Amino acid sequence: MSAKIIKAEVFVTSPSRNFVTLRLTTDDGVIGIGDATLNGRELAVATYLQEHVAQLMVGRDSRNIEDTWQFLYRAAYWRRGPVTMAAIAAVDMALWDIKGKMAGMPVYDLLGGKVRAGVPVYRHADGSNVDEIVESIEKYRAIGVRHIRCQLGGYGGGGYGDAPSWAARGANPGVYLDSRKYMRDTLKLFEELRARLGFGLELVHDVHERIHPTEAVQFAREMEPYKLFFLEDCVPHEQLEWLSRIKQLSVTPLSQGELFNNPAEFKRLVANRSIDFMRAHLSQLGGITPARRVQMFCEEFGVRICWHGPGDMSPIAHAANIHIDLAAQNLGLQEWSGIEPPNFVIQKLSGARGALLEVFPGLPEYGNDGFVYASDRPGLGVDIDEEKAGKYPCDAGVTTWTQTRRSDGSLITP
Amino acid sequence: MSAKIIKAEVFVTSPSRNFVTLRLTTDDGVIGIGDATLNGRELAVATYLQEHVAQLMVGRDSRNIEDTWQFLYRAAYWRRGPVTMAAIAAVDMALWDIKGKMAGMPVYDLLGGKVRAGVPVYRHADGSNVDEIVESIEKYRAIGVRHIRCQLGGYGGGGYGDAPSWAARGANPGVYLDSRKYMRDTLKLFEELRARLGFGLELVHDVHERIHPTEAVQFAREMEPYKLFFLEDCVPHEQLEWLSRIKQLSVTPLSQGELFNNPAEFKRLVANRSIDFMRAHLSQLGGITPARRVQMFCEEFGVRICWHGPGDMSPIAHAANIHIDLAAQNLGLQEWSGIEPPNFVIQKLSGARGALLEVFPGLPEYGNDGFVYASDRPGLGVDIDEEKAGKYPCDAGVTTWTQTRRSDGSLITP
Amino acid sequence: MSAKIIKAEVFVTSPSRNFVTLRLTTDDGVIGIGDATLNGRELAVATYLQEHVAQLMVGRDSRNIEDTWQFLYRAAYWRRGPVTMAAIAAVDMALWDIKGKMAGMPVYDLLGGKVRAGVPVYRHADGSNVDEIVESIEKYRAIGVRHIRCQLGGYGGGGYGDAPSWAARGANPGVYLDSRKYMRDTLKLFEELRARLGFGLELVHDVHERIHPTEAVQFAREMEPYKLFFLEDCVPHEQLEWLSRIKQLSVTPLSQGELFNNPAEFKRLVANRSIDFMRAHLSQLGGITPARRVQMFCEEFGVRICWHGPGDMSPIAHAANIHIDLAAQNLGLQEWSGIEPPNFVIQKLSGARGALLEVFPGLPEYGNDGFVYASDRPGLGVDIDEEKAGKYPCDAGVTTWTQTRRSDGSLITP
Amino acid sequence: MSAKIIKAEVFVTSPSRNFVTLRLTTDDGVIGIGDATLNGRELAVATYLQEHVAQLMVGRDSRNIEDTWQFLYRAAYWRRGPVTMAAIAAVDMALWDIKGKMAGMPVYDLLGGKVRAGVPVYRHADGSNVDEIVESIEKYRAIGVRHIRCQLGGYGGGGYGDAPSWAARGANPGVYLDSRKYMRDTLKLFEELRARLGFGLELVHDVHERIHPTEAVQFAREMEPYKLFFLEDCVPHEQLEWLSRIKQLSVTPLSQGELFNNPAEFKRLVANRSIDFMRAHLSQLGGITPARRVQMFCEEFGVRICWHGPGDMSPIAHAANIHIDLAAQNLGLQEWSGIEPPNFVIQKLSGARGALLEVFPGLPEYGNDGFVYASDRPGLGVDIDEEKAGKYPCDAGVTTWTQTRRSDGSLITP
Repeated sequence: MSAKIIKAEVFVTSPSRNFVTLRLTTDDGVIGIGDATLNGRELAVATYLQEHVAQLMVGRDSRNIEDTWQFLYRAAYWRRGPVTMAAIAAVDMALWDIKGKMAGMPVYDLLGGKVRAGVPVYRHADGSNVDEIVESIEKYRAIGVRHIRCQLGGYGGGGYGDAPSWAARGANPGVYLDSRKYMRDTLKLFEELRARLGFGLELVHDVHERIHPTEAVQFAREMEPYKLFFLEDCVPHEQLEWLSRIKQLSVTPLSQGELFNNPAEFKRLVANRSIDFMRAHLSQLGGITPARRVQMFCEEFGVRICWHGPGDMSPIAHAANIHIDLAAQNLGLQEWSGIEPPNFVIQKLSGARGALLEVFPGLPEYGNDGFVYASDRPGLGVDIDEEKAGKYPCDAGVTTWTQTRRSDGSLITP
Repeated sequence: MSAKIIKAEVFVTSPSRNFVTLRLTTDDGVIGIGDATLNGRELAVATYLQEHVAQLMVGRDSRNIEDTWQFLYRAAYWRRGPVTMAAIAAVDMALWDIKGKMAGMPVYDLLGGKVRAGVPVYRHADGSNVDEIVESIEKYRAIGVRHIRCQLGGYGGGGYGDAPSWAARGANPGVYLDSRKYMRDTLKLFEELRARLGFGLELVHDVHERIHPTEAVQFAREMEPYKLFFLEDCVPHEQLEWLSRIKQLSVTPLSQGELFNNPAEFKRLVANRSIDFMRAHLSQLGGITPARRVQMFCEEFGVRICWHGPGDMSPIAHAANIHIDLAAQNLGLQEWSGIEPPNFVIQKLSGARGALLEVFPGLPEYGNDGFVYASDRPGLGVDIDEEKAGKYPCDAGVTTWTQTRRSDGSLITP
Repeated sequence: MSAKIIKAEVFVTSPSRNFVTLRLTTDDGVIGIGDATLNGRELAVATYLQEHVAQLMVGRDSRNIEDTWQFLYRAAYWRRGPVTMAAIAAVDMALWDIKGKMAGMPVYDLLGGKVRAGVPVYRHADGSNVDEIVESIEKYRAIGVRHIRCQLGGYGGGGYGDAPSWAARGANPGVYLDSRKYMRDTLKLFEELRARLGFGLELVHDVHERIHPTEAVQFAREMEPYKLFFLEDCVPHEQLEWLSRIKQLSVTPLSQGELFNNPAEFKRLVANRSIDFMRAHLSQLGGITPARRVQMFCEEFGVRICWHGPGDMSPIAHAANIHIDLAAQNLGLQEWSGIEPPNFVIQKLSGARGALLEVFPGLPEYGNDGFVYASDRPGLGVDIDEEKAGKYPCDAGVTTWTQTRRSDGSLITP
Repeated sequence: MSAKIIKAEVFVTSPSRNFVTLRLTTDDGVIGIGDATLNGRELAVATYLQEHVAQLMVGRDSRNIEDTWQFLYRAAYWRRGPVTMAAIAAVDMALWDIKGKMAGMPVYDLLGGKVRAGVPVYRHADGSNVDEIVESIEKYRAIGVRHIRCQLGGYGGGGYGDAPSWAARGANPGVYLDSRKYMRDTLKLFEELRARLGFGLELVHDVHERIHPTEAVQFAREMEPYKLFFLEDCVPHEQLEWLSRIKQLSVTPLSQGELFNNPAEFKRLVANRSIDFMRAHLSQLGGITPARRVQMFCEEFGVRICWHGPGDMSPIAHAANIHIDLAAQNLGLQEWSGIEPPNFVIQKLSGARGALLEVFPGLPEYGNDGFVYASDRPGLGVDIDEEKAGKYPCDAGVTTWTQTRRSDGSLITP
């Protein structure tokens, strides 16, 4: 086998959300696919791959994954950031997919083999009041889920706080957030949840960066009685140094990192144990190769991984998460928003279930017992059906959910 | 004036190198331009702007520059990195250009006014031996330049070290670097330069990340006798923490940062005074607004600015550099690779001189006395001639200069 | 336009309190005003300006604000301190006022434009018992105020403790303070306030440096249950290093800084995040130019600004606060003691309302909805009416409220 | 394939030195071998494997390498130390050998593929005087070696110092060392070497822990003019904290670690960059799995790997080194004491060459150009010939070279 890459193709499809997929083909006819999705900026990545990367890939030896990663990373000179890392990640995933197929092994086997049978996951229970959230929790428990994220009205509070007086004057649109009210209400929510459900269920909460670090210091302490499994993204990405302060003052476990795309952001946090769970988004790290490095780095410091796994993530990336999880001694938990079993009643993307299965056959599925199980097919185990993908054209509309403002109209992190 | 943006256009042109330019137009007919160039990945930025940003700009109030910066930065959710920051920077520069025109003032006046008459610059003297470098230095001195960067055979050593034995076997192509030989030869170069030229000329050297941090520790100390104005990028971007070690062991002034696109990379370096000069590339920071913030931040710690100003940088970005420099109390120096006076004999881009002036009328020019002077026209003072730009189509070929390898064939930072 | 300064005049007037105002005039007839008030030492600043600065200003280019700031700061050689900084601040504000008028833009637009519609403010509810304080709070809430500072009997406790035994012997006059009793009473106050008002209102408390740092460590922790928005000046200016100790032990947000007139006092505090809110007095920093630098510096560390805005501050300085606030991404809150709407029943300076409006037409006003809105006039938007100013002569009497003593008669910080 | 292990065998043979080898066989007939050699304590490891581990292996799934590693490591409860880690390492290597064969890929390909063509190595030039050392160096240079370790009379100085007066009284036998004389002589050696050979050759020196840390501080600084590639083991294993002191005072690169068998020994050193090169002995880390983790950990901190590769190390372990080296971006160098090309005149183990090739067919070989190249056969590429192994019985005699004493008779680290 010469294993040289002879073709690099990019597909943009939208069976549920917009997904960008890279497909590499070797001269031996082996095909590998990788996720290149960057939510809200999809086409920038597609162009990055089509115009700048594709020509570099043709003729390269598919076996040299690390060398190719270093090549795309270093030879671009300008490094890091969401578009670049998403593009490199796509190549990296596709090469691991190819290597697995060449070896006749699933990717987790190349990474040292399974250390666990299945991957424990957490799911999202959102609601506009406690009753709705409890109802959602019960449905999840019924299918075996033991870790649940609870949010009142979405993240750190779409709808929190009244529309400000001046909004009528035609000022900037957006969701208004009163971070203090959000904190008070969330404390009440968890007090109520623990009163109703006891402590036998693991609860997670995502602040989504929407409060000020000063407030996060208070909030992490006030949440202590509810014994969260972890509190997520309680400070904005730009103020990560505050996490060590929070760690000095609170025992609430902290997770952070779906935005990490630069080790300068997280190396010190991990080395200082300022976070308990590493929540990176695999393609923002640059794929399986660097994620494996990060996983091992965290292991040295007793920090556990819990990769980002939101609903707007490609099934290919979900599969990559699962393969690493299966081989990682320091897995903490996995966020899971992949497709549900057919009988799951609160399935949000139910309309999309069929479409996703059509376009991405072989995607990993939830096992109805709290765990997700990987496919044992060689490589990542997922495929893309080019023809079906064409049925769901990309919708590159404007992302609006990310415009969040304080009551004075100033923007905060969404 | 309502000052609303009604049009956002992107131009890709190549009068000397590929340059991407954003042009915004307000309902009052005011036009602003900003640089969106990202070397080697130009089209990804163009797509980012055309497909994802342009529609967001139409209808926005051009006066709210900070709010627009925060909006593009935060509402994209995935933050930082070369493509994203280059795109945001283009919008930011264009808005400052508009604001200056609305105020009838050059941008430096909006920033608090001139604190200096002109901006002292350094130029590049490369050569394959000492004689060539001295000859180049003398030509620069003849036109008033007092700070000169000296490199033997380009950066940290294209051509350093023999081609390895295995290269003949058809292994990866690239430039081979023996970092130890490069250090020995560079020490000899500066010993010779000081012997011939004395110490009355300020010398700079750029390692360009091409040696290992362990070697940089040794090198910074060994360079001490030659009293550099600064030693640039002596460690790779991924190993910036080593700078504090170097600072403990050597008095050689250090500059770093043309790759900075994330404060997580430099905030601690500046606060610990591990660098003496901040060398950021303006559009990688995200434009004038964040660069001004960084300039002031550095000022608090006694760190001076010396923005990146390479030959492959758009005249618009060069102008933005100069406007900030004129208003910054803590300017250290400015790298200058803009077009030369017509009579300058070692002009490298001489063929491009006319083309640049055609496409970007009003670009800042060197004053033949060691300083660059800004245009006093309102805004940034540079324009883009759409028709002339069309004469020089973009060449999105593969960047190859960035493939640098050790003698064993492994890639290093270019 | 040549924009040269041809006249520098100083006015001292007392429509409510003593205010010193500098007025600069350019050869184009543009007028700028700046506040030079230093409470209790007003005439020293007036003399500093009239005798030492005025002659330096005539003939200077009004556009070079930073250069003028550096000139007045550095060329005086002896630097910092209240008199000097108040004088420099007056020049700086006047120059920004001129620049705004030359550009036809409000100052906030020169600073990058509005990032918010209005500026959220807090007000003062003092009282000799809980009932009085609650009554005052309710009046503020009725006009939209959502952040309120509560003090029992003024600061850290005028009148706290019995008159000491030796007082009858004719020893030093002053206010006697028992800091331990003050802490006990204040804890009781906030317990009562939260019991009556709940947590839906943001409360602030100002210790005004009147307890010992050792006590502040306890007090910050004991106040935690009442979830202050911040605790102000809990240590004396001379013992700022204690703040980091307090931060290790308490989640109570801390603000500090109305006395800051030297970066040596606050740089480390901010960089270590030992304070949550920067409370500097704008003219003690030296005006808009350095305040903008401080604001940006704080932003890098996640520290929010909440400029000092007491009742004895000139409307010009209030306006300068508001202009920076509108352009600052990291505004936390603004102290507001400007004039109230006409119908506000607990207006303390009501007698002065007319006088202030007469002397300083255009001053920023409270919007009856929790926010203060800036004037959209070019420059700072405030003027001084020379003739009306003359109606209210300065009263340079002795300040007595600042003499505070422990029960043994020794002086403490007021 | 069921890939279950059905047989675990241990071989002890001595074709040149004593080597312990583990051989695992799966139900598919795939065979994997691993090195279990522990110099001077060989039979303890053989017993550990035969009596305690073999029975645990039979029936296990060979694919789950990480799980098996964790099992052997954790389920023994008493952890770490030379015997345990050597035994676990043998299993780990054998499992990677099996996985490679199952995948039809060399181990480096499973680890992400080659990032370099060959592995640069250093060799040992010992001698009793400068002339002998230079002669040895020249022979190495003639076959392409560019990095050479130079020792006067072996390590930190066998034979240094006169036999002490009390030795005649029949006191303890051993090698006597005068560390001060050793330092003086070594400085003279390198001064002479640089004078004769210039700086175009990379030199290494191994202190072998034989001086006091206080002396190492001086020595590292005094060696600076000779620009070592690195100074090895300059402090005893029990005094590793001294390395950070040395790093503050000297630019000499430091390597350490052939004794590391516990992360508690090196994690802090690496994270603080107190060493420049990680010199661990692969089987003391516990095999390929943990060595890969250590390699990646070092990479994050800019520390390079240079695995221990002495003459008394099994060819299987040499092969494992090389496979990791080929896939590691942060390889610094490799110690090489494998068999020489047939024509190499200063071959010390020449008598053993044939024996080694007989017993361990497929071992990696030196390429006569400064690099070692891996076999491209699946797995580690080395085999053991059971029959030939039997020809060279183990010699479990007493090791005496490790008894080193100061002139007063007290023992130091050998």
